[in-house]
Amino acid sequence: MKDWLEENLKRLNLVESMEQPGGFTRLGYTKSETEAIRVFEKVATELGLTLQYDTAGNAIARWGGSIPDLPAVAVGSHLDTVASGGGYDGVAGVLCGLGAVKFLQDAGFKPTCPIEVICFRSEESSRFGISTIGSKAMAGLLDLEIGSIKDSEGTTIQEAVENIGLDWSQFPKAERSRQEIKSFVELHIEQGTILEESGKDFGVVQGIACPIRLKVQTVGQAGHTGTTPMNRRKDALVAVAPLISFVSETARELSEAGEVPVVATVGTIEAKPNVMTVIPGVVEVGIDIRSVSDSLKNQVAERIRHKCEELEKLFQVKFSVSTLVHNPSVLLDPGVQKKLAKACEDAGFTGMRMNSGAGHDVMNMAAKWPSGLIFIPCKAGLSHHPDEYATVDDLKMGMEILASYLRQESGCNE
Amino acid sequence: MKDWLEENLKRLNLVESMEQPGGFTRLGYTKSETEAIRVFEKVATELGLTLQYDTAGNAIARWGGSIPDLPAVAVGSHLDTVASGGGYDGVAGVLCGLGAVKFLQDAGFKPTCPIEVICFRSEESSRFGISTIGSKAMAGLLDLEIGSIKDSEGTTIQEAVENIGLDWSQFPKAERSRQEIKSFVELHIEQGTILEESGKDFGVVQGIACPIRLKVQTVGQAGHTGTTPMNRRKDALVAVAPLISFVSETARELSEAGEVPVVATVGTIEAKPNVMTVIPGVVEVGIDIRSVSDSLKNQVAERIRHKCEELEKLFQVKFSVSTLVHNPSVLLDPGVQKKLAKACEDAGFTGMRMNSGAGHDVMNMAAKWPSGLIFIPCKAGLSHHPDEYATVDDLKMGMEILASYLRQESGCNE
Repeated sequence: MKDWLEENLKRLNLVESMEQPGGFTRLGYTKSETEAIRVFEKVATELGLTLQYDTAGNAIARWGGSIPDLPAVAVGSHLDTVASGGGYDGVAGVLCGLGAVKFLQDAGFKPTCPIEVICFRSEESSRFGISTIGSKAMAGLLDLEIGSIKDSEGTTIQEAVENIGLDWSQFPKAERSRQEIKSFVELHIEQGTILEESGKDFGVVQGIACPIRLKVQTVGQAGHTGTTPMNRRKDALVAVAPLISFVSETARELSEAGEVPVVATVGTIEAKPNVMTVIPGVVEVGIDIRSVSDSLKNQVAERIRHKCEELEKLFQVKFSVSTLVHNPSVLLDPGVQKKLAKACEDAGFTGMRMNSGAGHDVMNMAAKWPSGLIFIPCKAGLSHHPDEYATVDDLKMGMEILASYLRQESGCNE
Repeated sequence: MKDWLEENLKRLNLVESMEQPGGFTRLGYTKSETEAIRVFEKVATELGLTLQYDTAGNAIARWGGSIPDLPAVAVGSHLDTVASGGGYDGVAGVLCGLGAVKFLQDAGFKPTCPIEVICFRSEESSRFGISTIGSKAMAGLLDLEIGSIKDSEGTTIQEAVENIGLDWSQFPKAERSRQEIKSFVELHIEQGTILEESGKDFGVVQGIACPIRLKVQTVGQAGHTGTTPMNRRKDALVAVAPLISFVSETARELSEAGEVPVVATVGTIEAKPNVMTVIPGVVEVGIDIRSVSDSLKNQVAERIRHKCEELEKLFQVKFSVSTLVHNPSVLLDPGVQKKLAKACEDAGFTGMRMNSGAGHDVMNMAAKWPSGLIFIPCKAGLSHHPDEYATVDDLKMGMEILASYLRQESGCNE
């Protein structure tokens, strides 16, 4: 099976070798993403699965069960990448799903319910700033108004999907009914170092920490850096600097004080006019706050707002805080977690419960179907990077875990 | 005289009214700067002055003295502006110089030494990042290698001067000998609020605070904002935030502790990759430090370097500090200061000694000739801005001060 995994990892990544110093670039709803999905179709067809595309371009590979009308047991992930990304984020889940089918077939297993391996489109937010478009459509969570959002080249989402032969107005028809799917499980590389450090084989994810994102604008007064005395300044950058420290310290403090961690990051900063001879008059920062605990996230956001009021008085500038994103965190189905943990242990691996700091397609699926998420380790937590790496042994473990789960779940013994 | 000043202020600014919401844009070595200089030529010719252009495009309007071979008493400034700048920065000095000549002529005065009103080219650094090109050439301080520096449209300085009919290789010939000029005085708007706040009429500048400019690069480690725990981060922005506060606090402290002020500003900041979902891996800031005291400037720079070492250890990131500019500050000639103060008081105005936080053409002239700088007030310290404003009364005062000085100085009574 290791050879099969290694071979098909390269095929799905459209390369002859996984050593790619420039990384992998298959942005969502581009021809290169389509090309990878065509390979998925080919591999699935080789396994005797039947392939179907929905109106959002998602590919569904189906292994019919002995009772074909039962809801399907589904696994899956995505094949798009960020620009210069890695070859495992997304691909690992699709590959292990197909591998699990092969593993069960080789063992002579016959499912009672149908089994599906789903390949979602455009999971990454790097092209349009909108993530998980394909799975949003399948779960009926898509807002058609995002169709006008543009990528960096000025192409809208609507134009992008039309350029590859899809019809944006038909995307809502990709929604599937509750009865079609029994449960959904995604396997993904961890993109962190918790597994590597704990020495555990895999993680069963309990919750996905969706972000609160704030934009903080600070308006001071521009002025000549040479002629404006220090005590007459309203320097927006000087006013915002303590906030940058505060965001980090607050998240660290709250994480150390409780059981559930919260992370907070000033990821973006823009000063205007940003020239050497002018005191910054306006500064904008973007803050990303994540935790599986919505109350912790709210607490951080609230403290940031208070800090801004304090800094406003101290530096005689004007702060305004706006909320760009406020997504409640997703708690995954406890029943599926339990089954996954059992399946993993049955397969001979030791796991741990953990949370996910990053979003995944399973977030959307969880809104409609009992869903679960399995993490396998990745080297040094590196992801969205050409050096992203998971061992073939860990891919094989992932495949065996999914196979063990699918065997239980599609036997329909409950 | 007020009418003459108002009329010629508009003429030199190439407008019918000084109310220009979009401001004035006459970048250095462009046709619009040339156009303003042609008006200068016209006004000077109307006053009977003889006009000469040097190889750098500077215009020299000369009022011959009764002993024509004596060194000239020179005044002047520039007519270029920043983009969307004001109509007084530079223009005030040129206008008051021409006005002083008219004032003396109207009073029947005949100079012994020749009097010159000089209009320098390309004083502002906003087009090429290089300031005072014309006066550098006249004082023999020009480095021809800067000819390859490009503006934001990709035009080099050499191409720019050639586009308006000048020859870059001939610029060094604009240098004048020590014997040609007796002294040089520039009049300029203050671009600050010291005069306005003190209630004094004018300022006699003692020193010009030239900058030390540092670039500080902080290299941490990029990572996913959702999956990297707070205690595992090397966030370059969090590491640099205390430095921003430190720069401001250090300059404020040293200014309050001593007699001579020092100002320090983080004017530019750039974080990479500057996206909401990635911890900033690299941050670069630009720091501008100014004081007429070179030792104070060095002290601030030294403290910044030490702070960087401290932060490097604290945040486990790498700081590197490089010096972009290190210009010793310019102390103006005490003899000229004394004469200017006397001339001003003779004209009936009360003045004060002060320093300049901004650079001016006189910096270069002072390297070769006894030189002085007079400040007149400008509204709210606003400059490089469409709302830049000086009253016609203050322009008239400036003209009378220059006239009084020229009368003394060109009488050659010493």
